[in-house]
Amino acid sequence: MGRTLRELWDGNEATIGGWCSIPSPFSAEMMGRCGFDWVCIDTQHGVIGYDQMMPMLQALSITRTPAFVRVPWNQPDHIMKALDAGAQGVIVPMVSTEEDARAAVTAAKYPPAGTRSWGPIRAALDVDDYSAEVGNRRTIVAVMIETPGGVDNLDAILAVPGVDAVYVGPSDLALGHGMTPTLSVSDPEHERLIEAIVDGCRRHGVVAGIHCDSVETVRRWHARGYGMFTVGSDAALMRQAATAVVAQAFEGSREVVLPKTGQYA
Amino acid sequence: MGRTLRELWDGNEATIGGWCSIPSPFSAEMMGRCGFDWVCIDTQHGVIGYDQMMPMLQALSITRTPAFVRVPWNQPDHIMKALDAGAQGVIVPMVSTEEDARAAVTAAKYPPAGTRSWGPIRAALDVDDYSAEVGNRRTIVAVMIETPGGVDNLDAILAVPGVDAVYVGPSDLALGHGMTPTLSVSDPEHERLIEAIVDGCRRHGVVAGIHCDSVETVRRWHARGYGMFTVGSDAALMRQAATAVVAQAFEGSREVVLPKTGQYA
Amino acid sequence: MGRTLRELWDGNEATIGGWCSIPSPFSAEMMGRCGFDWVCIDTQHGVIGYDQMMPMLQALSITRTPAFVRVPWNQPDHIMKALDAGAQGVIVPMVSTEEDARAAVTAAKYPPAGTRSWGPIRAALDVDDYSAEVGNRRTIVAVMIETPGGVDNLDAILAVPGVDAVYVGPSDLALGHGMTPTLSVSDPEHERLIEAIVDGCRRHGVVAGIHCDSVETVRRWHARGYGMFTVGSDAALMRQAATAVVAQAFEGSREVVLPKTGQYA
Amino acid sequence: MGRTLRELWDGNEATIGGWCSIPSPFSAEMMGRCGFDWVCIDTQHGVIGYDQMMPMLQALSITRTPAFVRVPWNQPDHIMKALDAGAQGVIVPMVSTEEDARAAVTAAKYPPAGTRSWGPIRAALDVDDYSAEVGNRRTIVAVMIETPGGVDNLDAILAVPGVDAVYVGPSDLALGHGMTPTLSVSDPEHERLIEAIVDGCRRHGVVAGIHCDSVETVRRWHARGYGMFTVGSDAALMRQAATAVVAQAFEGSREVVLPKTGQYA
Amino acid sequence: MGRTLRELWDGNEATIGGWCSIPSPFSAEMMGRCGFDWVCIDTQHGVIGYDQMMPMLQALSITRTPAFVRVPWNQPDHIMKALDAGAQGVIVPMVSTEEDARAAVTAAKYPPAGTRSWGPIRAALDVDDYSAEVGNRRTIVAVMIETPGGVDNLDAILAVPGVDAVYVGPSDLALGHGMTPTLSVSDPEHERLIEAIVDGCRRHGVVAGIHCDSVETVRRWHARGYGMFTVGSDAALMRQAATAVVAQAFEGSREVVLPKTGQYA
Amino acid sequence: MGRTLRELWDGNEATIGGWCSIPSPFSAEMMGRCGFDWVCIDTQHGVIGYDQMMPMLQALSITRTPAFVRVPWNQPDHIMKALDAGAQGVIVPMVSTEEDARAAVTAAKYPPAGTRSWGPIRAALDVDDYSAEVGNRRTIVAVMIETPGGVDNLDAILAVPGVDAVYVGPSDLALGHGMTPTLSVSDPEHERLIEAIVDGCRRHGVVAGIHCDSVETVRRWHARGYGMFTVGSDAALMRQAATAVVAQAFEGSREVVLPKTGQYA
Repeated sequence: MGRTLRELWDGNEATIGGWCSIPSPFSAEMMGRCGFDWVCIDTQHGVIGYDQMMPMLQALSITRTPAFVRVPWNQPDHIMKALDAGAQGVIVPMVSTEEDARAAVTAAKYPPAGTRSWGPIRAALDVDDYSAEVGNRRTIVAVMIETPGGVDNLDAILAVPGVDAVYVGPSDLALGHGMTPTLSVSDPEHERLIEAIVDGCRRHGVVAGIHCDSVETVRRWHARGYGMFTVGSDAALMRQAATAVVAQAFEGSREVVLPKTGQYA
Repeated sequence: MGRTLRELWDGNEATIGGWCSIPSPFSAEMMGRCGFDWVCIDTQHGVIGYDQMMPMLQALSITRTPAFVRVPWNQPDHIMKALDAGAQGVIVPMVSTEEDARAAVTAAKYPPAGTRSWGPIRAALDVDDYSAEVGNRRTIVAVMIETPGGVDNLDAILAVPGVDAVYVGPSDLALGHGMTPTLSVSDPEHERLIEAIVDGCRRHGVVAGIHCDSVETVRRWHARGYGMFTVGSDAALMRQAATAVVAQAFEGSREVVLPKTGQYA
Repeated sequence: MGRTLRELWDGNEATIGGWCSIPSPFSAEMMGRCGFDWVCIDTQHGVIGYDQMMPMLQALSITRTPAFVRVPWNQPDHIMKALDAGAQGVIVPMVSTEEDARAAVTAAKYPPAGTRSWGPIRAALDVDDYSAEVGNRRTIVAVMIETPGGVDNLDAILAVPGVDAVYVGPSDLALGHGMTPTLSVSDPEHERLIEAIVDGCRRHGVVAGIHCDSVETVRRWHARGYGMFTVGSDAALMRQAATAVVAQAFEGSREVVLPKTGQYA
Repeated sequence: MGRTLRELWDGNEATIGGWCSIPSPFSAEMMGRCGFDWVCIDTQHGVIGYDQMMPMLQALSITRTPAFVRVPWNQPDHIMKALDAGAQGVIVPMVSTEEDARAAVTAAKYPPAGTRSWGPIRAALDVDDYSAEVGNRRTIVAVMIETPGGVDNLDAILAVPGVDAVYVGPSDLALGHGMTPTLSVSDPEHERLIEAIVDGCRRHGVVAGIHCDSVETVRRWHARGYGMFTVGSDAALMRQAATAVVAQAFEGSREVVLPKTGQYA
Repeated sequence: MGRTLRELWDGNEATIGGWCSIPSPFSAEMMGRCGFDWVCIDTQHGVIGYDQMMPMLQALSITRTPAFVRVPWNQPDHIMKALDAGAQGVIVPMVSTEEDARAAVTAAKYPPAGTRSWGPIRAALDVDDYSAEVGNRRTIVAVMIETPGGVDNLDAILAVPGVDAVYVGPSDLALGHGMTPTLSVSDPEHERLIEAIVDGCRRHGVVAGIHCDSVETVRRWHARGYGMFTVGSDAALMRQAATAVVAQAFEGSREVVLPKTGQYA
Repeated sequence: MGRTLRELWDGNEATIGGWCSIPSPFSAEMMGRCGFDWVCIDTQHGVIGYDQMMPMLQALSITRTPAFVRVPWNQPDHIMKALDAGAQGVIVPMVSTEEDARAAVTAAKYPPAGTRSWGPIRAALDVDDYSAEVGNRRTIVAVMIETPGGVDNLDAILAVPGVDAVYVGPSDLALGHGMTPTLSVSDPEHERLIEAIVDGCRRHGVVAGIHCDSVETVRRWHARGYGMFTVGSDAALMRQAATAVVAQAFEGSREVVLPKTGQYA
């Protein structure tokens, strides 16, 4: 806590982030108090729209936890509004081509690097001498490589100036390549794709990040060169812990009906 | 209540839906308790954004009423977020070309049928063995034919695999063809267009739906082959009933000033 | 629309009000556009707390529809906050004694008539030369007579200066006297109580109001001397109209399952 | 899931509940999907007001998880509004005297058992033949014994008809008796108080409940006769799980700064 | 207050508008009570999403203050939803080409002038005989000229039928042309650009508007031909006034630490 | 910024606070960035309920600005919930007797000093070794002396242990003593009362605070011994600044209609 995303990126150390799917500034503040290097507010698959995201960014400011926003789609409105509201970085889903990557960077950066419109209403808060240069330097752009196109065009995407990180969604990556969506990678082809991406990142000096389902998975990919991780989400961690309580409370003394599996929060 | 949209679609029976314009999970729950086969949350012309839509989808889950969301525009972000949040179907406005239709289906379906990103945070709830296949089969895509282009390209649109229904907006259909927007169809040309659409749907085995202003209009179009109906909206039904109370309460004993007509909620 | 509650009260004409149970400024605006003389936001049995009530009062200001708030309980915080936010009157539930009535009036009026604290943040808007006197005169206090104590102490309650109206809750009145709660009054003892109240009101020059379930019930009590009416609520009117649509849409051509009765919204 | 609170109470089996401190209908739904017998929305120490509580009660209805609301204080407005909105039970803090207990029951029950006002706007939903009798029987009243007065007047409180359960807040119990507030009971005097309460409950046929910090604590008090449990809260479970992720992710490879302890969410 | 945007536009008089960045219907109402000719809700750089914008438009209706919405981006969904919700005009950012301008107008106008979909849920309120023609005439489209492309294509943009106004964002204009973003124009090249735009507007009979930082700046550009102005925003005016209070309260008697400059709200 | 309320109180220096009437975490953050020693969220006359207050307290945490909450009324539920949510102090309106003062302190302090219930969900955040003692010491209780009873019982009230400050509401003070409510004190009797209060505070070593309408008024009362000040409110400062813009923008070139005076936000 306390370092900016850019400082983390310059630090060359692996980072661990929290993932917010619950639309609540209170749960966001709690996530910001768990020791994560950064927290991402997921406005793509989390059930969070702009009007809930905004006070969540405020909540993360309390502990100076730098925030990513995963935008719903690669559109300038989503990217610019997230950054104005105080996100230090964006995670942009389904980047499949060099053009996609360029569009994401362009929306995230002020001229001359891009076309971001000036209005850093929360972005400039607590920043000394905020300017277009400072803002551009502070902003981290992470593109998701998770489609067949993204894999095919990996080097072209990674070569786009301003692409600071790749964030891998293993489920979409599997699904797009004809496999079952999962974070528990066992299919060799799935593993090969994940490894190809980190190798590409190394070639281009780009941080490789990945969504994980457990600490074990973090260690697995960390060992393979990945350097930016999340595990589950606020809702998933809560549900797992709560379900464990139910399962264990009366062990041996009464039965309880545990919920069906197959939930993705 | 209790059947999924897909089961309703496979059932070959006419269905009646409720229409939500009021941004409130309480009014949505009430609409879900009126016996409708399904309820649509209108985020196009209703005054509802994502952060209000989300708990409305929760509210409809209480009675297992399957939900459509009418998205604001044919964009992947709107379609994917609505489905993730638990809508079983989307109604996509102003589909004018085969490409439009294909784009709508593509956003609504996981690979290989489309490019929907995996993250069924509420979509997978209460579904046995949710998978990409199950999700794709469950999802109903209804495209609105309401522009001159839509009429011209009717067959090409209806031939797009994954188009499950057409939903006609008679007002836009009229307006786009030089007539006055209305749900009370009296212009023969207006009627001809509405009939042409249902005839096209019959040719392609696609359900034909239409927005109505009264039960009488439902019967009129039902007799002509339409099979998916709504009447007014939550707000319109409420206003009509409330205005009738005012008009009748003091009949003969005092005057009341009724509101001007010309309201469209 | 356009007259203040006080002007309505001074006008000696029967009035009809709308009743809001849905927590939404949009549905409140719609209710304010139906021709009602006034609209009441029900924060007792409606599912509305202060933070939803506030923009609903704004919504009613659009059409200058004067607003009552039914407070959750006879407490100064509820009464003062409703009035500050712009309600022109309060309906206070379960007033059973002269002390109860006096407490309600005291909270609603500035010194010397009461102890209302000064801070008319929305109450003073659009009022010429707002002052404590003007505010006190504008404010209508309606007490609910619906408990056995309220009936027993009717004359003492009605004699409290500042009690402008009685509002009868027929359901609580029945229930408190050992009958089944209902708005459809058929039990002679129930009817006798309702008549006793209006007779008391006439003796004291206080307006008698009553919650009704239909226009017919309005007429019944109007003929008996009542002068302030509501019929159902926003949610109830909407549900009745929507259920009728479902019941009638396919008459004779397919069956629909109507929701169970016994709903009280 | 699926049984009412009353059925659980009649079932004579120990129950485990979830505890909601996060003001969000989405996290409430998630808590309702963890297998708990019931879930309590904490509007006393949780950061939840009425307008957030309401859609949370809707969210719990999705899985038919019966809901308690812990009210902020022993006031009729809080108790009645929670029950109207669909809570099947209330947990009333700081009940110290027979009068306190009687006041809680009176507010929670319709006449003749109490003075609850009639308006079961969500309470009657999905209940066959809802009536005052049915409503009264369904409603569970749990009083918190956690003050010296509560301990002193234990038998008088437990003898009040309509008190269905005692819920112990070990922290307040400790603090009020001169000990440090904690859920990890080690002080013998603290333990003696907790045991005295369950013994009293057994004498009066009242269910004894207690707030726990772990599954082990559940088992400890279960063995001693308690029959109604919670462990932590939504926020606490989430924070503990998230902090564990941070602590373990890079074990041995880099340091992380874990947040200070001493958080009470 | 009371005149429509169109009447203001036809009035040929300079107008002054308020600017809302705070997502609150209460602050919007306050801004609507300050005497501005119109108020703009800024959903581009203000921290306002759709679900907060909607009740803000209601709040402005209270005083009949006509509302602009600055949309986040030149997209039909943003434009159509703002107009349906009751905005009388849209301000469209970053219009750089004739095609951009045409797209903005097309989304804002019903056929045959454009492709706006029919559903004037709040737009038709209080409008006599609302129709497509009436709606089109009422709607003001203001395009922002603030990019190099916008300047280059000025005449082509201004020649697009339906462009009623240009609104200049001096900060983006500077930034896009290699200067420091500022509202305090001192760079001669910056000034030249601003003057070129107003000259273009005069050629095409289009109103020229500009965002200002002070009353002095308003007068400067008014003298140069501009006719539509704003000064700062709700948040900026509040912060400036509040900071002045802090600075002056204890002058000479104690020191206070004033916040760093560099804030852009 | 950065010091706790207790540190400010121990510092013996005059303090200046901001006053929040707008229900918005964004405007609260802005108020927290203006240099105020503390900010008060007014849930009595401001249009703010609990669910809006909560994220506003989060917003003030961003800059470590200590927060007061003015509670709606002297009730334990309001006081305890405000403190749990992170307020460092409460301002309690209309304290008229020693019993009133004692009730306020009792609700604000943990045993043995009071009866505050343990659950410092946000209160303990960022506090080292939070405990009942620490919590009690941190909490500032300010009682409002503004009724005739309050003036009469001044010494008894000020002698209650735990009363840290008096906050004078000049408007209520005037109104309760038969004068016109105003913050611009000119009536000698009004002045006498205000002076009597500060003299009493000096006798008892209690900080004397007062609500002001301008910096001049701050200086006037500061000179007379007062040491805790506010000027207007967020909404009032904003409105005054905005109205000045309107008044001055076109001076001499066109007329504008300024809003009527008599607004109290």
